[in-house]
Amino acid sequence: MEFRIIKSPSAGTLDILKQRMKASAVSAMDGADAVGLVQGRMIEMICAADIAEKAVGVTVEDVRGSCPQNMIMIAIFGDTSSVESAIQEIKRKLEEGKKLC
Amino acid sequence: MEFRIIKSPSAGTLDILKQRMKASAVSAMDGADAVGLVQGRMIEMICAADIAEKAVGVTVEDVRGSCPQNMIMIAIFGDTSSVESAIQEIKRKLEEGKKLC
Amino acid sequence: MEFRIIKSPSAGTLDILKQRMKASAVSAMDGADAVGLVQGRMIEMICAADIAEKAVGVTVEDVRGSCPQNMIMIAIFGDTSSVESAIQEIKRKLEEGKKLC
Amino acid sequence: MEFRIIKSPSAGTLDILKQRMKASAVSAMDGADAVGLVQGRMIEMICAADIAEKAVGVTVEDVRGSCPQNMIMIAIFGDTSSVESAIQEIKRKLEEGKKLC
Amino acid sequence: MEFRIIKSPSAGTLDILKQRMKASAVSAMDGADAVGLVQGRMIEMICAADIAEKAVGVTVEDVRGSCPQNMIMIAIFGDTSSVESAIQEIKRKLEEGKKLC
Amino acid sequence: MEFRIIKSPSAGTLDILKQRMKASAVSAMDGADAVGLVQGRMIEMICAADIAEKAVGVTVEDVRGSCPQNMIMIAIFGDTSSVESAIQEIKRKLEEGKKLC
Repeated sequence: MEFRIIKSPSAGTLDILKQRMKASAVSAMDGADAVGLVQGRMIEMICAADIAEKAVGVTVEDVRGSCPQNMIMIAIFGDTSSVESAIQEIKRKLEEGKKLC
Repeated sequence: MEFRIIKSPSAGTLDILKQRMKASAVSAMDGADAVGLVQGRMIEMICAADIAEKAVGVTVEDVRGSCPQNMIMIAIFGDTSSVESAIQEIKRKLEEGKKLC
Repeated sequence: MEFRIIKSPSAGTLDILKQRMKASAVSAMDGADAVGLVQGRMIEMICAADIAEKAVGVTVEDVRGSCPQNMIMIAIFGDTSSVESAIQEIKRKLEEGKKLC
Repeated sequence: MEFRIIKSPSAGTLDILKQRMKASAVSAMDGADAVGLVQGRMIEMICAADIAEKAVGVTVEDVRGSCPQNMIMIAIFGDTSSVESAIQEIKRKLEEGKKLC
Repeated sequence: MEFRIIKSPSAGTLDILKQRMKASAVSAMDGADAVGLVQGRMIEMICAADIAEKAVGVTVEDVRGSCPQNMIMIAIFGDTSSVESAIQEIKRKLEEGKKLC
Repeated sequence: MEFRIIKSPSAGTLDILKQRMKASAVSAMDGADAVGLVQGRMIEMICAADIAEKAVGVTVEDVRGSCPQNMIMIAIFGDTSSVESAIQEIKRKLEEGKKLC
């Protein structure tokens, strides 16, 4: 499982993400100071999405890859500290046990 | 074969699953307290779906992955104890013999 | 090459298979007591389909996978004993020689 | 590179092939006593198709696989002896040198 | 991660890239003296796109591959020295640490 | 990277290529005595296309594969000696250094 955080993402970067998201998700980006990216196997990303969603101040979206086999990527939008907390929460659960859910 | 159970899945998590299911399956989610996820090779997932379907109180749906080679994932919706029983039933058959059907 | 037989498949299981078949194939399922599944490399599945088709009392359909590389899966519908005979015939040819056709 | 020949292919087998061919290719099947199958890497299948096409009495078609990475499959239709000659011609070139073209 | 720069790309080369980009991106190519190509894993390419976008004088676009698993490719358009600076900036960050963001 | 040249390609072979090209590329085939095929990783094929395009008397087209991961294939059309020169030029650059551009 891999994690990245982009602070103040550029317009072009958000554009690349927008092309890979469902149309109705685009509004989640507006007013987001940061975007967190988590990439992993599909079954674990469903769990990771659920953990992040249950954290406060963030929205979680599914980013369609280019046919990435078992891997999918989710994007977590929100203000920088909320995105960092949501990702911290996933990492903390990962360290506790092997399964996120 | 991998198994996960999410209790009280968040709206965003159900949303990610909805995008990967056939439109008519969405109603199966309403009133479901839990979602069970099973991921494995296609031929075995057909068998696993059949075992879960024959258990009581659950609905089984096919979750389209992002081009996951031989792997597909099914989602089992229902109240928490029904989902747990359905998954228990698949695991029990797996331990008995090597083939689910 | 892998083989499975599901006797009295549940409605949900047939539904998952229907979503992966051509529309006109759906009627082949009606009145079928059993479904045989055979998964293998594309070139061998064409041969396996031909052997099963030449057996009596069964219909053979191509099940679209989720991008399963070289692997495809065929489903053989019919009454239980016909499906078993068709699969037996493929296995018998497999044991005789290395190529099904 | 793999080769198979099906003599007097059943209706269901031709049907599976038809679903994976361009619509205009279907007429090539009518009156064909046999179908030859050749599976290999894309760049070599273009060469193999050219060799078979230059043999007499056969028609060559591209069979769309289920996302088979570098592998594609071509089908060679015609009377049994023409299909056998076309496949013999590809095998003969393969044995002479490493490249078909 | 791989890097290439094409100076004065030919019309046919831009055409191949255009077919793999979103329609609205095509104007970014007009007046571009050079095109930089960066290929890598999806999660890192989002970061690389962000670094390049924050450099001056370039436009970054997502190039759809032919089902390239985890790999995606971005194209960076602009005058030759801007494209070179943007790619230099990505390489510099890569050498500093292991993560681009 | 792999190279093939087909002299006087048969109608069926050109047909298989046509199905995998953009509609507007089909006219490039008319009057072409030969077709050169180059298969390699996407980032290198963009460079190879640019080198071939800058050679004289040939047209370069992108051939869509069947989901060939990182690999794409380009076709180079023209009279036999032009196609041979274009491919010679790519090979020559390959031998000089490791990157085509």
